Amino acid sequence: AQSSLTLFGVLDVGIARVDGSGVRRTGLSTGGANISRLGFRGVEDLGGGLSAGFWLEAGLDVDTGLGKSASGALAFNRRSTASLSGGFGELRLGRDDAATFLNTLIFDPFLTNGVGGNNAFIMLGAPIQQSNAISYLTPPSLGGFYGQLQVAPGEQPSTAPNRHEGDYAGLRAGYRSGALHVAAAWGRLHGATSDTELKIANAGVSWDFGFVRPSLLWAREERAAARMTAIELGATAPIGPGELRAQASRYDRADSNADWTKFAIGYGYNLSKRTQLYATVAHLHNSDGAQRSIGVQGLPATGTSLGGSSNGYEMGIRHAF
Amino acid sequence: AQSSLTLFGVLDVGIARVDGSGVRRTGLSTGGANISRLGFRGVEDLGGGLSAGFWLEAGLDVDTGLGKSASGALAFNRRSTASLSGGFGELRLGRDDAATFLNTLIFDPFLTNGVGGNNAFIMLGAPIQQSNAISYLTPPSLGGFYGQLQVAPGEQPSTAPNRHEGDYAGLRAGYRSGALHVAAAWGRLHGATSDTELKIANAGVSWDFGFVRPSLLWAREERAAARMTAIELGATAPIGPGELRAQASRYDRADSNADWTKFAIGYGYNLSKRTQLYATVAHLHNSDGAQRSIGVQGLPATGTSLGGSSNGYEMGIRHAF
Amino acid sequence: AQSSLTLFGVLDVGIARVDGSGVRRTGLSTGGANISRLGFRGVEDLGGGLSAGFWLEAGLDVDTGLGKSASGALAFNRRSTASLSGGFGELRLGRDDAATFLNTLIFDPFLTNGVGGNNAFIMLGAPIQQSNAISYLTPPSLGGFYGQLQVAPGEQPSTAPNRHEGDYAGLRAGYRSGALHVAAAWGRLHGATSDTELKIANAGVSWDFGFVRPSLLWAREERAAARMTAIELGATAPIGPGELRAQASRYDRADSNADWTKFAIGYGYNLSKRTQLYATVAHLHNSDGAQRSIGVQGLPATGTSLGGSSNGYEMGIRHAF
Repeated sequence: AQSSLTLFGVLDVGIARVDGSGVRRTGLSTGGANISRLGFRGVEDLGGGLSAGFWLEAGLDVDTGLGKSASGALAFNRRSTASLSGGFGELRLGRDDAATFLNTLIFDPFLTNGVGGNNAFIMLGAPIQQSNAISYLTPPSLGGFYGQLQVAPGEQPSTAPNRHEGDYAGLRAGYRSGALHVAAAWGRLHGATSDTELKIANAGVSWDFGFVRPSLLWAREERAAARMTAIELGATAPIGPGELRAQASRYDRADSNADWTKFAIGYGYNLSKRTQLYATVAHLHNSDGAQRSIGVQGLPATGTSLGGSSNGYEMGIRHAF
Repeated sequence: AQSSLTLFGVLDVGIARVDGSGVRRTGLSTGGANISRLGFRGVEDLGGGLSAGFWLEAGLDVDTGLGKSASGALAFNRRSTASLSGGFGELRLGRDDAATFLNTLIFDPFLTNGVGGNNAFIMLGAPIQQSNAISYLTPPSLGGFYGQLQVAPGEQPSTAPNRHEGDYAGLRAGYRSGALHVAAAWGRLHGATSDTELKIANAGVSWDFGFVRPSLLWAREERAAARMTAIELGATAPIGPGELRAQASRYDRADSNADWTKFAIGYGYNLSKRTQLYATVAHLHNSDGAQRSIGVQGLPATGTSLGGSSNGYEMGIRHAF
Repeated sequence: AQSSLTLFGVLDVGIARVDGSGVRRTGLSTGGANISRLGFRGVEDLGGGLSAGFWLEAGLDVDTGLGKSASGALAFNRRSTASLSGGFGELRLGRDDAATFLNTLIFDPFLTNGVGGNNAFIMLGAPIQQSNAISYLTPPSLGGFYGQLQVAPGEQPSTAPNRHEGDYAGLRAGYRSGALHVAAAWGRLHGATSDTELKIANAGVSWDFGFVRPSLLWAREERAAARMTAIELGATAPIGPGELRAQASRYDRADSNADWTKFAIGYGYNLSKRTQLYATVAHLHNSDGAQRSIGVQGLPATGTSLGGSSNGYEMGIRHAF
């Protein structure tokens, strides 16, 4: 049976400045265009249309050489899955991107990364990756339709005060054909008590006109009385040997004026298919009740005053292998 | 000179339920049939019958993407050795399986793993892997006889109150020919005071009748007045495109009635040489003085009451590369 | 475009004894001839004389299987860089050897390692590796001249009490042609207050007579009133299928008699280009105010009394792949 074993990765490192209310921080950043990573993946043809696959992927901080585990060392906590695939689709077990995270990446021109990205719309705690995940993914042959159902048990004992603590379920569905791509996702993460259950919903749409691909992304997270809604208008446009990326986004907290607005524009210049130089500038403005400031991987945000504003500047190199 | 460099690994992940005295826990498990791992190994032919080799092997938790170091990140603490091999055998330096551990793996139909395994007979603290190990292993050409002598200094200063603390020594000897495999091991691990010295002994035998391979494994650990003895009767049988695995084992604490009995049966269905689906069920019954319960990697035991019983159910996929 | 992807590493493990004032410690050491490591590196030809490259390198302790992150797990904190190279030289971003460290390795017959090495002349805290480093390196075609300029921001906020804390800058320049190699380096590391700024300087020279290559290395570190100077006279000589290595070094603390002297001699026997057996002995003598003792990776120093002496003995295998 045919099989493949692939070593892959991304090293993305840049020079960045972030500021907030006049306080600046300058240094090396990492993952400004794509998360730096090292991975191993493979596929084994089992015959009869079936295949088995595995995927191990560790995040990296190129500026320090550290990994992304809690201790700062390497772990495959970006993705660690084994799969069975066939005409029925794919059954995948392990740690993986949360189904509710993926749209916030796909419909952001900055892929959630760097000073310009939407930071995965982490608003009230929606997961980016999810441990203990069991996923069913549709096969690629559904005329443009695709979907994913994902459940991840919190593994509480059956007699725990809140036996569903940590249980996650997510559903993602989309349609991609020709110039159109549209998708939506819904999910729930059970908290420590029933009133801390987090409800997650998002939807995105993009249309590729050729010279520009505009996108619209909406996301909401709710927990008890707290509700945050984000909306991002984005565009990517092929210009010369690269791509212009821009976004404007608004984050609205329903029960307060802890809201903010972010604008970003950047350009990625392709030295090759694998290597890109990029530069991005971003501006964030807080409403009176908010004090969000721009930070990136490898260069923490400075913080800002209530109602203050924050800027980010980043130029770097993204090299894939 | 010819040489090889091999990237290898196992991703083993499943869905499991464990219970104890009626309390259940359900979720993803890892390593149910084989420990999940990622490794690098190589051999260099030095000429004249000599070769040099290295082996780096890290354990993985596929359900979380974490590794097996104390902090949860990756480390090659399953095995990290450099070797010189020749007609004389092999001299191996580094961290390696403890010589006294190996029989508890070889003669267990479940290879110590999952809900069905013997959990390496960890009773009073015998090591599974051992750091700072110096091993001599016999060459493969001794007419079926093989042996390993392993010493590992505890690296205490010569003036320490107990200068032998942590010193380990192990000896393993076996004979494998035709249908017969028999082996025994003895070892000592010096504790913090002389009366905490741990004495380890075990022996196993199996006979391959073709349609079934029964095995018997006996193990004892002693420290001061404490003495635990375990005995495991196992069998593997090729049935269809896979293997039936079963074991019954008894753990006896000499100085109390903290004893327990375990039964397990499972089947591994081979999708290919590299990929297996498996399912295992296990039952554990405690004597009045014991409260052991079944847990697996990635899904902790629930605990049980004194004299209670515990069950484990697991189905998963084991994919090797 | 042509490109390469290389998996590389070193496993170096030995048996060592270190002592101080009569207290001995015996066990397994690692990195006695070269630091044990695992790495991934690659180069992509971008055309027009340009190339992109990456380098990820993790240190290993073969005796325990652990890595070199703070938690003992694996991290690429030996080197983690992305580069653009061309006729202009190389621009390199990420974590890398400190420019001021490299001479202490190049001009030490023991490459800073094992019982015999100069321990990188870590005297008052000069860095070995440096995070957040931006380096320019000259191209290889300057008639034997080479140089490196390296800056690494400490990434303090602009309003921090000491906003330059952690800032590092280093310059290295050398000339290598025929039998001659000469190089010098200067650097500064800003401490928490201005009077804790560390000034680093070193210089080395070697001449290869063919049958022996003598070397001289001088290094100084200064912080406020503290000043340490080290001088090392070294030699390597090809003898038979290997290399003799020897050094004598003196460490002088300007403001006290906390000085010491070290002597070491060793031989590395090449089994192949990739595999070497080695043995080293070393002796260290303290002045009345010092209590330095020899320790190695994997086997900590025992300590010694004020004015006492210390010895180190090590034999091992270094295997590269």
